[in-house]
Amino acid sequence: MGEFELIRHYFQRAGANPPGVVLGVGDDCALLAPEPGQRLAISTDMLVEGRHFFADVDPVALGHKALAVNLSDLAAMGARPLGCTLALALPRADATWLAGFSRGLFELADGAACPLVGGDTTKGPLNLCITVFGQVPPGQELRRSGARAGDEVWVSGQLGDARLALDALLGEIELAPEVLARARQRLERPTPRLALGLALRGIASAAADVSDGLCGDLGHILVASGVGAELDADALLASDAISADLRALPRERALHCALAGGDDYELIFTAPAGAHDAVLQAACSAATPVSCLGRITTEPGLRWQDACGRPLDLAWASFDHFA
Amino acid sequence: MGEFELIRHYFQRAGANPPGVVLGVGDDCALLAPEPGQRLAISTDMLVEGRHFFADVDPVALGHKALAVNLSDLAAMGARPLGCTLALALPRADATWLAGFSRGLFELADGAACPLVGGDTTKGPLNLCITVFGQVPPGQELRRSGARAGDEVWVSGQLGDARLALDALLGEIELAPEVLARARQRLERPTPRLALGLALRGIASAAADVSDGLCGDLGHILVASGVGAELDADALLASDAISADLRALPRERALHCALAGGDDYELIFTAPAGAHDAVLQAACSAATPVSCLGRITTEPGLRWQDACGRPLDLAWASFDHFA
Repeated sequence: MGEFELIRHYFQRAGANPPGVVLGVGDDCALLAPEPGQRLAISTDMLVEGRHFFADVDPVALGHKALAVNLSDLAAMGARPLGCTLALALPRADATWLAGFSRGLFELADGAACPLVGGDTTKGPLNLCITVFGQVPPGQELRRSGARAGDEVWVSGQLGDARLALDALLGEIELAPEVLARARQRLERPTPRLALGLALRGIASAAADVSDGLCGDLGHILVASGVGAELDADALLASDAISADLRALPRERALHCALAGGDDYELIFTAPAGAHDAVLQAACSAATPVSCLGRITTEPGLRWQDACGRPLDLAWASFDHFA
Repeated sequence: MGEFELIRHYFQRAGANPPGVVLGVGDDCALLAPEPGQRLAISTDMLVEGRHFFADVDPVALGHKALAVNLSDLAAMGARPLGCTLALALPRADATWLAGFSRGLFELADGAACPLVGGDTTKGPLNLCITVFGQVPPGQELRRSGARAGDEVWVSGQLGDARLALDALLGEIELAPEVLARARQRLERPTPRLALGLALRGIASAAADVSDGLCGDLGHILVASGVGAELDADALLASDAISADLRALPRERALHCALAGGDDYELIFTAPAGAHDAVLQAACSAATPVSCLGRITTEPGLRWQDACGRPLDLAWASFDHFA
């Protein structure tokens, strides 16, 4: 199978272009038609075998995840997807792998209305680079820099299960098969919170997605906004942001997975305290659970306390590829 | 040096955002402000060590080339650059390499008004994935599918020198040092023909960039347009599209480099015969030489003949990563 046949067979689809796509795969460039006056939101993520995923991962799950981690960035900006490109280095043209990968990618692309509009295919060590484009009306984007003292700190969904699965797959902890299956689903098939991002336009003051761990990604918001935060670790552990599986583990491991795990692809965001009910309504309209974790403070830094108000030392760093 | 310090030091620049960039490196997404009503043109190219470049290539040249091959796609579409993203897998954080690479990248980005607005950095086998965004007014894009029988076939600049350098670097041919130096410049520092692409809006009927070889890339235009072409190989060899260095070589090697070489990043385009002078004026306004190579025909296929009108068998295939 040659390069062009590979592209045609696995990544080019027959039929009319989806709305907003003037020209898709097959020319020097793709052409999109954003709505006039909208801002263009762009993000790119590169996934490397052995670093971001195991060599034997299910290719359907990998196709899903490669796009999901990018869509998560659009969600964190409050942007609506317009399309994506895929650049792919492959050691060889493996038909079974390509069929699974493209199926996982297109299932999520269809569900998120984010058509694949172009790409590049080459031979090389397995590497996936997806770039996503979205649109957001001027001034409605959810930046990291908008958090203000007094705002509440929220997180969507649940934290830590992806890290729990990773620890189990690396042999650091043993889990019951059904617990591992649930956690692995969170590691391999994260859900980008696009509907929540759109619903939080005009409500949230700042947002980021949790890819490197809650502490690290909330830290980015705090630094960008020039503020700090006070969070209650015991309230977090008791909240809906922690799964029953994680809560059943020793407190130290549960906290480490939840706060420093990464790969959650939930939204961490802030909103004025007066918008508490509006946040809950937005979450309800987006069918996405949210939990309130604490408060933004004038004093910089991220401070954790227990249920009795005693300070806890939970200064886990963000994941760093070169640290 | 950690990942975030690496990004700040080599890829994030102080000062105000360039025009059109609402938000650059450092949030979940970059935000661009395309002019209202314009189409968004997008292309992505992935470069792998050992496949697209030698491991010991000058990192300044590599930074230039990684962006140049992407800008060449915008040029072939008649699009004006808006910005680019860079995803980078690095085996290690090598300060000398990073300084050179980012310098080469930013020099071209500045010259082409194509600011780096975002990216991703990870550890892994060296891999560079750049995605470029440009804008073009509706209906003015240069597609591959617009060539019509009777149109003239044109090419910009010169063909074949990049392949000549590659053959010499692979030890297949010996070149005088000054000849190799000139050819190597064409291989390692190609010039994206952005000004010509813009000048050809409304004049050219179809265009592509020559990345896989003239025969292959013109072939894409012919197939997309449902037409064929008749070209004169002797006229090509005598034209300004062939450098004196290449013309001095045996005819067979010169033709192979020029027609099947690839890595030229010139524009191959068609225009109605009545627009001959308009093409020359556009080329003059863009300060880019162009050469007329032949005619589009109703009969499909690419046919070469010599100066006496005798058919030549020069059916070189396009480069294929998986053939």
